[in-house]
Amino acid sequence: MAEKVVLHYFNGRGKMETIRWLLTVAEVDFDEVHLTTREQYEKLLSDGSLMFQQVPMVEIDGMRLVQTKAILNYIAEKYNLHGQNLKDRVLINMYSEGLIDLMEMIMILPFSTDVEAKLKNIQTKAKERYLPVFEKALSGPIYLVGGKLSCADVELLECTLMLEEKFPGILADFPNIKSFQGRMTRIPAISRFLQPGSKRKPQPDEAYVKTVMEVFNVKLPLP
Amino acid sequence: MAEKVVLHYFNGRGKMETIRWLLTVAEVDFDEVHLTTREQYEKLLSDGSLMFQQVPMVEIDGMRLVQTKAILNYIAEKYNLHGQNLKDRVLINMYSEGLIDLMEMIMILPFSTDVEAKLKNIQTKAKERYLPVFEKALSGPIYLVGGKLSCADVELLECTLMLEEKFPGILADFPNIKSFQGRMTRIPAISRFLQPGSKRKPQPDEAYVKTVMEVFNVKLPLP
Repeated sequence: MAEKVVLHYFNGRGKMETIRWLLTVAEVDFDEVHLTTREQYEKLLSDGSLMFQQVPMVEIDGMRLVQTKAILNYIAEKYNLHGQNLKDRVLINMYSEGLIDLMEMIMILPFSTDVEAKLKNIQTKAKERYLPVFEKALSGPIYLVGGKLSCADVELLECTLMLEEKFPGILADFPNIKSFQGRMTRIPAISRFLQPGSKRKPQPDEAYVKTVMEVFNVKLPLP
Repeated sequence: MAEKVVLHYFNGRGKMETIRWLLTVAEVDFDEVHLTTREQYEKLLSDGSLMFQQVPMVEIDGMRLVQTKAILNYIAEKYNLHGQNLKDRVLINMYSEGLIDLMEMIMILPFSTDVEAKLKNIQTKAKERYLPVFEKALSGPIYLVGGKLSCADVELLECTLMLEEKFPGILADFPNIKSFQGRMTRIPAISRFLQPGSKRKPQPDEAYVKTVMEVFNVKLPLP
């Protein structure tokens, strides 16, 4: 029997949250080891667990995987969430890269200066650059690519929920995305993940930011 | 017959250079349309050629692909440079993501302030975080993964050549990487690409930076 999947990261969203979402949709159960001290991180460094000295790190199938996108691709491919052929896959990857770009802009906010200007920039980019692409792609189809659920759908759901936390009503002009959200949240695994007490993490707070800074031994604001 | 591959980007390295390298190794011939004016970019925007309003954009197999990593994955997969199975592929992707992280640090230098401090940081990270991983991986094997040439090998060659431009002698403590470089540069397609007059781009100069700023209508330093 395969060992249980173990996620090594902070007790917060960051770069791990999309991995949690994808495992959830793939119905893969996982445990988490939360980094809370510099010593824990140094132990991972010294025992060679982190290829490039970075987290997220995921123990799965006897491997210690690093690099968020490499991990996401592995899970997507293994659990048939990565398209049926080369052309579907490249489209899924294009959507996925765009959504991760947008989510990363939100992810770094707690570590940033000039947050108001950055929020405004994110809102503009979301409304003018990203959401129109997905609104158009969903004018008819149930899923983004090939009539089949893929990692891009999961990332679009995660991303739009994150956007709504920051900008309530941002989907008002995007009815196809709004119905897509409705359909996605009725998938049983997702419905459970959205309920209190699940492994889904809340928005980052001061304690999260403080832990990240201490573990990585860096100071705010980041360069 | 398939249409010729066309790359839409600046006449410089940037995010397109790794795509040029990979096409070269796959022995796929390509044309380039160089962005030199704001008007050209606005035309691409207005005719819907750029999914997320960004370049690189690559016309290939009747598609207009965007997002560097999506494009690289498509080429790697199509031309058998992406591993033979799921486990090889995730390792290739881990190496590849790390190498691209490192190359991006160098890529943004011409658009940065405090270049000396950033160079020092890149040199330290290269020597302590990245190169040791590849030195170890190449202690014996000819290629990084699965005994077969992959996109990660191509990216490692590109990355180490970039590093040597900035830090001559940086490979002195990494003999396995140095011999790997020697082997890779004897591959005929690569040998031709390294000769003057090939489609390989030089290091960015002031004219390149000026063009990028004008086309994207932004000012230095970037935020």
